[in-house]
Amino acid sequence: MPDRRADFGAEGGLRIAALAGGVGGAKLAQGLANLLPPSRLRIIVNTGDDFEHLGLTICPDVDTVVYTLAGISNPQTGWGLAGETFHCLPAIERLGGPSWFRLGDRDLATHLVRTQALREGRRLTEVVRRQAEALGVCHPVLPMADVPVRTCVLTDEGELAFQDYFVRRRCEPTVSGFRWDAPEGATPSPEVRDALAWADAVVLCPSNPFVSIDPILALPGVREAVAARPVVGVSPIIGGEAVKGPAAKMFRELGFVPSAYSVAEHYGDLLAGFFIDLVDADYAADVVSLGADVRVAQTWMPELAQRVALAEEVVALAVELCG
Amino acid sequence: MPDRRADFGAEGGLRIAALAGGVGGAKLAQGLANLLPPSRLRIIVNTGDDFEHLGLTICPDVDTVVYTLAGISNPQTGWGLAGETFHCLPAIERLGGPSWFRLGDRDLATHLVRTQALREGRRLTEVVRRQAEALGVCHPVLPMADVPVRTCVLTDEGELAFQDYFVRRRCEPTVSGFRWDAPEGATPSPEVRDALAWADAVVLCPSNPFVSIDPILALPGVREAVAARPVVGVSPIIGGEAVKGPAAKMFRELGFVPSAYSVAEHYGDLLAGFFIDLVDADYAADVVSLGADVRVAQTWMPELAQRVALAEEVVALAVELCG
Repeated sequence: MPDRRADFGAEGGLRIAALAGGVGGAKLAQGLANLLPPSRLRIIVNTGDDFEHLGLTICPDVDTVVYTLAGISNPQTGWGLAGETFHCLPAIERLGGPSWFRLGDRDLATHLVRTQALREGRRLTEVVRRQAEALGVCHPVLPMADVPVRTCVLTDEGELAFQDYFVRRRCEPTVSGFRWDAPEGATPSPEVRDALAWADAVVLCPSNPFVSIDPILALPGVREAVAARPVVGVSPIIGGEAVKGPAAKMFRELGFVPSAYSVAEHYGDLLAGFFIDLVDADYAADVVSLGADVRVAQTWMPELAQRVALAEEVVALAVELCG
Repeated sequence: MPDRRADFGAEGGLRIAALAGGVGGAKLAQGLANLLPPSRLRIIVNTGDDFEHLGLTICPDVDTVVYTLAGISNPQTGWGLAGETFHCLPAIERLGGPSWFRLGDRDLATHLVRTQALREGRRLTEVVRRQAEALGVCHPVLPMADVPVRTCVLTDEGELAFQDYFVRRRCEPTVSGFRWDAPEGATPSPEVRDALAWADAVVLCPSNPFVSIDPILALPGVREAVAARPVVGVSPIIGGEAVKGPAAKMFRELGFVPSAYSVAEHYGDLLAGFFIDLVDADYAADVVSLGADVRVAQTWMPELAQRVALAEEVVALAVELCG
């Protein structure tokens, strides 16, 4: 892989704000971070999945992005830490505590230190910045909000808190919609507002549109700020299936065919550019009809080289759209 | 070792309330628990060492007693768990969190589950009962109070919270006294009051008199209730030194020769009977002069057999004193 960092990193180059959820989004974020210097990339991460567990504030998507950028994430699962151990969890279970959420021993440290800092009155943005720095992450990772804005999944079993749906119920209930539970007047963090005002272009990472990207877009002022600049999306659906997670199942249950086309349709006129996978090349013409500049690329990116390669193409399209 | 449980466990036998701190107290408590049925023994444990750490409520003495009775304590240290791992702690340190208190991965589960239960409004007594039961402990282990009553150590470096003195400063500051920091109107738990009213005799386990037993005795009504029945003490000082911990150093700094005699003198007329170690047999006459019935026995008890043997002698003296 040629090192394009110098080209893309040149002073005066494009400034990118990337919106991301967990595993899929983190992969492209890592590609972008390998391509662009910290002064040119800010990563805005969904916190709709966050929840309280055993008194700890857990931020799954933020942690996945930070661990991935730090190069310490578990390459098998995409979430959690490489070489993680699980000694605390069975001890919790033995004491009658909840064990449905798989807390790793090292991962626990993140939650403990974060929760303590939040309890001392620090903002989530500041806490994440410190933890990311401590792990050697140079690019700004910005939780979408400092206040809790939690995704609730409307299902045939009633309304479920996101992690209840996602982990405890293993995405089994049929989804009919989503709702965001937030304190009155909840806003994106100041850093997220700044990032959107600062960016020349916005990238929607290949994350679940409903529960990773929409929670960010639903915050007051975000959709408008995003819509005000060229937006390049990447389909999280490849060949009719999500690489990971329930996105395809959600599309089906909400009455749509899970496809790259449906993703583009979901984002609608927000998209100026859109990446679909090689296997979905047949959809290109349909997506073009929605008004987006469509590119076909390898969006499946288990390895870093593929992540950087896709990031290069995404940034190149953004440059083109801004030009 | 002959099984005396049947003799001592007979219906109508003596009912014992044992006051204990951490490692030393836990050893005799285990001996007593192996000798007496749960209907005949209640163990009242110091919570003056408890503290908040990373948002967790940690109860070192209670945990040491519970782990020891459960047979899962670390035989090398006396505290913590056998076969413990330490994966979370360096991760906490890497994130800039405090690492001076050695949190084990499995031990963390105890603190997490306890803290969550306390936050949900349960009393510490109830939380400890549940955790002890979950670990297979049948004998009642009663934290001295449900409310926080915290030992402050007065030193040449000023007043230190107990764990600050004990762990962070490794007992190095010179001690001039103690103070208990408690909410207005703090009392022993109802279960502790019941246990003291219920008991025929009280055992003061070989724990630090200043920071393990005195915090219990200092609670309103406890000293009076203890004094109302025969009390058998066991010296934590053997041959002028504590088996573990700063008791001897504290005696010296407070102006006393660290000895079994000084321990007996400290408890004063509370003691009806007192056990000193074989190596301290020379002190027997002096201690008798204080008014206590003195017995010389092996009080060093690294192994269970020695703990049960000492418990047998202690209970036999209590029976004699009650008779």
